[in-house]
Amino acid sequence: MADGHITYTTENLTDAVLARIAPDAPERTRIVMASLIRHVHAFVKDVELTPTEWEQGVAFLTELGRWCDDKRQEVILLSDVLGVSMLVDAIAHRTHASVSETTVLGPFHRENPPRMENGQHLSPGVAGEPLEVRVVVADEDGKPLEGAQVDVWHTSPEGFYDSQIGDGEEHAMRGRFVTGADGVVAFPTVMPASYPVPHDGPVGRVLSAMGRGPMRPTHVHFWIKKPGYRELITHIFKDGDPFLHEDAVFGVKASLVTDWDAAKQAGGAARLHYEFRLPKADS
Amino acid sequence: MADGHITYTTENLTDAVLARIAPDAPERTRIVMASLIRHVHAFVKDVELTPTEWEQGVAFLTELGRWCDDKRQEVILLSDVLGVSMLVDAIAHRTHASVSETTVLGPFHRENPPRMENGQHLSPGVAGEPLEVRVVVADEDGKPLEGAQVDVWHTSPEGFYDSQIGDGEEHAMRGRFVTGADGVVAFPTVMPASYPVPHDGPVGRVLSAMGRGPMRPTHVHFWIKKPGYRELITHIFKDGDPFLHEDAVFGVKASLVTDWDAAKQAGGAARLHYEFRLPKADS
Repeated sequence: MADGHITYTTENLTDAVLARIAPDAPERTRIVMASLIRHVHAFVKDVELTPTEWEQGVAFLTELGRWCDDKRQEVILLSDVLGVSMLVDAIAHRTHASVSETTVLGPFHRENPPRMENGQHLSPGVAGEPLEVRVVVADEDGKPLEGAQVDVWHTSPEGFYDSQIGDGEEHAMRGRFVTGADGVVAFPTVMPASYPVPHDGPVGRVLSAMGRGPMRPTHVHFWIKKPGYRELITHIFKDGDPFLHEDAVFGVKASLVTDWDAAKQAGGAARLHYEFRLPKADS
Repeated sequence: MADGHITYTTENLTDAVLARIAPDAPERTRIVMASLIRHVHAFVKDVELTPTEWEQGVAFLTELGRWCDDKRQEVILLSDVLGVSMLVDAIAHRTHASVSETTVLGPFHRENPPRMENGQHLSPGVAGEPLEVRVVVADEDGKPLEGAQVDVWHTSPEGFYDSQIGDGEEHAMRGRFVTGADGVVAFPTVMPASYPVPHDGPVGRVLSAMGRGPMRPTHVHFWIKKPGYRELITHIFKDGDPFLHEDAVFGVKASLVTDWDAAKQAGGAARLHYEFRLPKADS
């Protein structure tokens, strides 16, 4: 047996892997990969991960990618249920407290939703309790922003997004509006519902293993873009929903929870009213 | 806007996610998931992962699973190049220093390799320098073990495994032997070569980003199973290989590097001789 060759142990292997990162690799790559390697190794050592558990982890990560297609994004779902998506969101937006708060994109946004006009029904032919939505898009000072693109999407009253109904091809309860001079987007729709995140795949097994439920509280998604302004990805949640305190993806923020039922006291329809405030893109 | 709803921040989100693990979840699940959540969150916070980088990470993990099939395991490859596989190996085997050392399985083992008899050529029809392999499988005291199953596989002299040649269906440079009463498995084959790990996929991009090469030093794989004994997954490396100190998967251990050329001084063929010692399964 030959001498002079290093033998890697639990004590020296992490440093050996770190030492392989080239000094001339881009600085950000060095920082991110070094931290990733340190934390993955620390995790393996902390729990003394067994070969069998490692095999389960490999099988899990392999399966994760295989569940993804143009209507299902299991990797994002994993990030969501582990609170990672909201952590990235919190880091990105913590210096912008004066403007509307953000939350997770989630896996149900679709490219090129149907183009809608103000006042057009978002969910024609869908039976359910009426909901009147009226939002204003404004800058940080409350000045209305004209020409902002507003993607809106929510579940059916039964708790399903369009992509989860039938063959999933049809667009429903989903549309793209553009604000007028008053910054307003307003439309009738039907009341969405609380619903489980998709839990028939590998992420569902992770939730079950932790003894966690898959439910998300009732909400409507908004993705607002206006050139020159920071884009806003968020939801507005319905106050009183029983799952507000156990959102499977940790997406609830106090400022995003509003009373949709107030107008019903006066005999009107449920209403979701909100004013979104977007900072300048360079702020 | 309603009150009484928690807003998650970079300061309180990790604890909120940990608090969701049910008290009655299995203890090992609680330990592993809590550590995983802590370390993933710590990584995101340490590097202040940006939404764009998070998107790149999601795309990377999605692609990782999609590259996997019955001849390619990109998740294991990632684990290998980050040193995670060897770390798991080091943890699992650190209490068994008196027996043969282990190393990574790698992605090229195949189920049901061709059954071979002692003395049968492992690589018929493959042009290359002859290599005589003779290994003994013994217990911890050196007593030969009869009836041990020995899977052997290595690259061609050009550095390709059979699954990387042509349509990848044919088995070559690969076989399953069984030891006789003397514990010996011996056969002629051709000299394998150093070779790059598959680097045309997402893991290759990670290596490039870190300024790392993909090469592995010349070796022959062994996977030895004998009922009642701990199974042994390892390689034997060729001393003098220029990549011994920069193995892309950190698999080299001093005790696994041997001199294959010694016999050539006396005019003979290159030889790989080794005695494997397996501990009892319950030790």
